[in-house]
Amino acid sequence: MSESAVSSPAIRTALAIRAAELDASDELGKVREQFVLDTGSGHAADAPGVYLDGNSLGALPAAVPAHVADVVAREWGELRIRSWTESGWWEAPERIGDLIAPLVGAAAGQIVVGDSTSVNVFKAVVGAVRLAGEGRDEILVDEGTFPTDGYIATSAARLTGCTVRPVPLDSLAAAVGPRTAAVLINHVDYRSGRLHDLPGLTAAVQAAGAPGVWGLCHRAGAPAGGLGAHRGVPVGLDAHGVDLAVGCTYKFLNGGPGSPAYLYVAARHQAAFDSPLPGWNSHVEPFGMRPEFVPVDGARRGRVGTPDILSMAALEAALGVWDGVPVEAVRAKSLALTDFFLECVAAYVPEGRVSVLTPLEHDARGSQVALRCDDASDVMAALIARGVVGDFRAPDVLRFGFTPLYLGFADVERAARVLAEVL
Amino acid sequence: MSESAVSSPAIRTALAIRAAELDASDELGKVREQFVLDTGSGHAADAPGVYLDGNSLGALPAAVPAHVADVVAREWGELRIRSWTESGWWEAPERIGDLIAPLVGAAAGQIVVGDSTSVNVFKAVVGAVRLAGEGRDEILVDEGTFPTDGYIATSAARLTGCTVRPVPLDSLAAAVGPRTAAVLINHVDYRSGRLHDLPGLTAAVQAAGAPGVWGLCHRAGAPAGGLGAHRGVPVGLDAHGVDLAVGCTYKFLNGGPGSPAYLYVAARHQAAFDSPLPGWNSHVEPFGMRPEFVPVDGARRGRVGTPDILSMAALEAALGVWDGVPVEAVRAKSLALTDFFLECVAAYVPEGRVSVLTPLEHDARGSQVALRCDDASDVMAALIARGVVGDFRAPDVLRFGFTPLYLGFADVERAARVLAEVL
Repeated sequence: MSESAVSSPAIRTALAIRAAELDASDELGKVREQFVLDTGSGHAADAPGVYLDGNSLGALPAAVPAHVADVVAREWGELRIRSWTESGWWEAPERIGDLIAPLVGAAAGQIVVGDSTSVNVFKAVVGAVRLAGEGRDEILVDEGTFPTDGYIATSAARLTGCTVRPVPLDSLAAAVGPRTAAVLINHVDYRSGRLHDLPGLTAAVQAAGAPGVWGLCHRAGAPAGGLGAHRGVPVGLDAHGVDLAVGCTYKFLNGGPGSPAYLYVAARHQAAFDSPLPGWNSHVEPFGMRPEFVPVDGARRGRVGTPDILSMAALEAALGVWDGVPVEAVRAKSLALTDFFLECVAAYVPEGRVSVLTPLEHDARGSQVALRCDDASDVMAALIARGVVGDFRAPDVLRFGFTPLYLGFADVERAARVLAEVL
Repeated sequence: MSESAVSSPAIRTALAIRAAELDASDELGKVREQFVLDTGSGHAADAPGVYLDGNSLGALPAAVPAHVADVVAREWGELRIRSWTESGWWEAPERIGDLIAPLVGAAAGQIVVGDSTSVNVFKAVVGAVRLAGEGRDEILVDEGTFPTDGYIATSAARLTGCTVRPVPLDSLAAAVGPRTAAVLINHVDYRSGRLHDLPGLTAAVQAAGAPGVWGLCHRAGAPAGGLGAHRGVPVGLDAHGVDLAVGCTYKFLNGGPGSPAYLYVAARHQAAFDSPLPGWNSHVEPFGMRPEFVPVDGARRGRVGTPDILSMAALEAALGVWDGVPVEAVRAKSLALTDFFLECVAAYVPEGRVSVLTPLEHDARGSQVALRCDDASDVMAALIARGVVGDFRAPDVLRFGFTPLYLGFADVERAARVLAEVL
């Protein structure tokens, strides 16, 4: 806590020992071997980098390069058009959706992968307004929303005759009512890492007779692109009766840069889900070339155009790292990593140099730590130059993402130490 | 022409010699070496396959596998988040758009790559309605439209207070008027391969004060995803004053399965283009996290969410095959290939067994040949079993796509011969 602590060898030694002990007893420690980490990244071999930006772009799972190469060279290059049936290309959006489902607490058949997060937010918000029915004309969005959600919600409102009203989440229950057509809420605040109360807010929205749309991940934070915790238990979409949800796959799901997003439509809403983007892929008879649009049943109704196979291939291979990984363990390690990082920061960083924006209560914490710091931009540049890669968020926030699948406690201790040295 | 012609060795020899001569003098013959063709496709080595389905999925350009592998292993695996700036990921949608521009007769700065064709049709049609201004409430679509365009146009109409009216293209000039908000036209009819009159129809639509949206390629046909010909000259989007256009990249541009589509917004419309999908990528300050949406100028205004980098990488490498290829030569070879195919079919196939749906006039022909045949489904299955891969279109159409970059005249002669044998 004090200035002298920065250089206290005893504290450093004690924390390094703690890190080694935590790593030794980490049941997820072996999962790290399934990722490509710090090969040729330009950092000195004796000081490997610490990648704390998995909340922007997940690291490369080791299985991805060979699978993508096979899809390119054999499935596309040799089988060509036959791969739509013979290599399972056609079913990829739902098949990969079903791989994501257990990670967000959903039964199979409710998630489809494809398009960007923003495009899926558009489908979900317009779809929610239509589910809500006539006579409702207000779309509520949480005041601190990730901006692109607000832009898309505003467009959805303009096209459906609604207006958008930003509200602080702590007054959402009072704000919803008979005019509410849809509510768009982020699970994790992208700045602070605060985890919102999904069960409580979902119930409040539904009590007003409106569907809620949850943005699960692109504001970062929760491991597994939407896992959160409520008293230590991973929050399930099905268990809490969520209506619609959208998540991205390039952060904690490690699908690669700009990998396709996913759309969850609860089974009970699927028959009435009325997409504003009814492409041929969501037609009941996609190869029938019918002039009339008749939507297919099930998750496929959320599709639009031709699935983007190369990106889907990378994502499908990337999801293999979750085989046999209990989501509860991921959440527990996420909290342990962020706890330990905060402890190391408190021990190493001169008092008053940074302030912690991330909630200290576990129930309210995602998988990221945000620190306010006057010269955050310069500090992040210096950190990155030393191999500790986080995010700068204007004007004064250092954001560090903690990915339990490939980060260890020694990484966390080193990151805090480098931060203290930079500061 | 007669039944006996099927087995006439003299005719076969003459056509084989013609094919060899045409191949020998083909200035595009060398481009074929830049593609992966018939390696390990399961066909007997002495009878390599003929891929006549490049209008569904283009063959694999040889440069793609290594480039994709580098983007995965080095740019993502090693540089990770730094690649958004250091590997040019951020600018990819416009950079690749500028590679497509010369192929469709557009100056740089008007094409952006990303999202599926259907999503781009939605942006373009809603954008067109908004460009048309108040008081116009009818979206015209050509009667024979590729169905997904009609589904999306209908959704766009529903969301903008318009109605959709299908019209036959030969009466379009009479149908447009003061109520016309937008017109969606396919450049090439996906069934017959008929090439529509882009300059004339564009002028007719604009005379009514409405913008036209051209669907350039996913109904297949024209080489280069939108190249057509008007008296032998490739049709340019800029030269004919096209307003908006959408094309796909996985057919004649060989971008890979489900590779991202592109959107052309003429420079004169860019400042007023008002996208229904205003994502953070089209914000003037995408990293500013501003609550208000302020659109960026230029082609980037057509973006929505995070660009899909792996698919963009494959497409960018694929476009390299166009280096030094004059588009006029591609159009000329396309016509020569389809002419020669029709000639071989006439010589080999028993009279009356098939009828030609594709226009014989060059001005009206895309780069495909459609043949009507009572048992088309069985015939196509038999062709594919023998390595001649085309498309079956219900109920009775055999569709063959001719890709001048990697098809030769000997391929065409062999395909017609196998067709005659199957019939």
